[in-house]
Amino acid sequence: MVPSLLPIAISLGDPAGIGPEVVAKCWDRRSEFNLPPFVAVGDPRSVASVWDGELAVLDDPRDADSAFDHGLPLIPVPAAEAGVPGCPTVAGSHCSLDSLEIAVGLTRSTSTSAVVTGPVSKQQLYAIGFSHPGQTEFVAERCGVSQSNVAMMLAGPTLRTVPVTTHLPLAEVAGRLTSALVEARGCATLRGLQRNFGIAEPRLAIAGLNPHAGEGGALGREEIEIIMPAIEALRAEGWQVTGPHPADSMFHTAARARYDAALCMYHDQALIPLKALHFEEGVNITLGLPVVRTSPDHGTAFDIAGEDIADPRAMAAAIRVAASCAAHRAQA
Amino acid sequence: MVPSLLPIAISLGDPAGIGPEVVAKCWDRRSEFNLPPFVAVGDPRSVASVWDGELAVLDDPRDADSAFDHGLPLIPVPAAEAGVPGCPTVAGSHCSLDSLEIAVGLTRSTSTSAVVTGPVSKQQLYAIGFSHPGQTEFVAERCGVSQSNVAMMLAGPTLRTVPVTTHLPLAEVAGRLTSALVEARGCATLRGLQRNFGIAEPRLAIAGLNPHAGEGGALGREEIEIIMPAIEALRAEGWQVTGPHPADSMFHTAARARYDAALCMYHDQALIPLKALHFEEGVNITLGLPVVRTSPDHGTAFDIAGEDIADPRAMAAAIRVAASCAAHRAQA
Repeated sequence: MVPSLLPIAISLGDPAGIGPEVVAKCWDRRSEFNLPPFVAVGDPRSVASVWDGELAVLDDPRDADSAFDHGLPLIPVPAAEAGVPGCPTVAGSHCSLDSLEIAVGLTRSTSTSAVVTGPVSKQQLYAIGFSHPGQTEFVAERCGVSQSNVAMMLAGPTLRTVPVTTHLPLAEVAGRLTSALVEARGCATLRGLQRNFGIAEPRLAIAGLNPHAGEGGALGREEIEIIMPAIEALRAEGWQVTGPHPADSMFHTAARARYDAALCMYHDQALIPLKALHFEEGVNITLGLPVVRTSPDHGTAFDIAGEDIADPRAMAAAIRVAASCAAHRAQA
Repeated sequence: MVPSLLPIAISLGDPAGIGPEVVAKCWDRRSEFNLPPFVAVGDPRSVASVWDGELAVLDDPRDADSAFDHGLPLIPVPAAEAGVPGCPTVAGSHCSLDSLEIAVGLTRSTSTSAVVTGPVSKQQLYAIGFSHPGQTEFVAERCGVSQSNVAMMLAGPTLRTVPVTTHLPLAEVAGRLTSALVEARGCATLRGLQRNFGIAEPRLAIAGLNPHAGEGGALGREEIEIIMPAIEALRAEGWQVTGPHPADSMFHTAARARYDAALCMYHDQALIPLKALHFEEGVNITLGLPVVRTSPDHGTAFDIAGEDIADPRAMAAAIRVAASCAAHRAQA
């Protein structure tokens, strides 16, 4: 792994979730997981309540490198009141949003090289008036990038998927698809493969929406009317694109070898195969941003928070992938 | 494997597809694949044009057992004209439908112990006026069983899934779901696990429809209004049922250990994980019928028909599972 020059900022997510615990465990096992220096951003009490290690509370992320050997570097974002693991509160939701904002801001201002976001509860955030479908859209807005030019990639060791639509009721997916949106997400994905992964001539496989990719129109016409025109437009721009493929025949070993990323039409079409194959190692990467942003592909897991049983491997993978993407960008 | 007493009937599917080839290869490798006696039903020319082995053309399936050691037993269903591998025709589509009808009829009349159906092209069948969404619904009607009481199970070595809705445009899925339908499919699945697999106390995991199972209603209300009432109804009948689960968190190794089958809301939700994990070994089993019916989980593959490269493992798995289910039923 090529180390990045600056530390990576990690927002801890909901202080009542497993974010603080998995970040602390990553610091404990930083050698085993082969992790570059990072700095946590969040409420120090949320870490101290679930972990006995040394915290290095910092004012300036530039001190993270030197502090990293001795303690978990942390930029403090105190919640209005101390919380209890597993018990989400309004104060904690505000704290998770502030931490995200600060971690993104540090990275935009090049104090840190990339941002990794810990898990938040969207249900909790909606309750305090959060109006974005997810953290990805929030980060895009803060970076001044149109949501249609951003793509959420889920990456594991043998598969990368990108959903065209994300946090929508399934009934609304078909109505939201347009050729322009499929093309924009496809383009963001292809450029992201070049920029973040160093793949000079990326190959994109595009899924159909309907069973059997519509079976020639008998099971839906979105493949003919929406997806195929987007594929033709991307090909006209010189990209290597195949599809629309029946979604159920895209994810076995032999099929995965034929592309660098799969563009999927909705959340679960992208997430089901990724998590079936790579549950412990799935990383979410936001493509199309001026900054590198990744996150572990799991939720707050309030039900096990504070029990010291949360698995830090996905967070470790998110940190490693963030460092690798930042290094690819620095070399470009 | 417990051998069944009577041979298994296999409809060859579209004569221009890979069905004839994979059935012939199964006979060639019957010892290696540990297959019980079976009898093909279809056009003998479709087999002879892709295979050099010995055909044992029979009038009576009761002769299949004794013929099986010397040649591939076959009940002839000649198409109106001889076809070419890879080139589907109207005559071939009619032949595939006749073969299916005869194979089901032989099994209903207990001349054969189970029916395995080879791959047909639904697009071709729709062109000749076939009005069922798929072979499963056709077989159900021929057996006089209501379609809502039948369930299509996809089974591999470590996962069984059942879709509540099947060959529908994705945009129509949410409108088609009702609590009664989810409950009926769940019940067919649970009874099928008892009857065909000998699992006395089966465990069913039910997926949500929307991303994150609707995230408490923020991403869709079908989980609250349709799926949860069905779960409660099944529990009231004494079944072990969990859910609604976020579909993307149901299919990793640890999750799969917690249930005997997963009930999914639509085709690709069930098929994507099954084929991602078990592409070469997926078997389709129709639950809720008076007869045992399985099929390999692949299509006609017209593009490779006649090239002698089709993989017979899924057909072999379908034959083995059919025999195992028939044996479980005979013991019940």
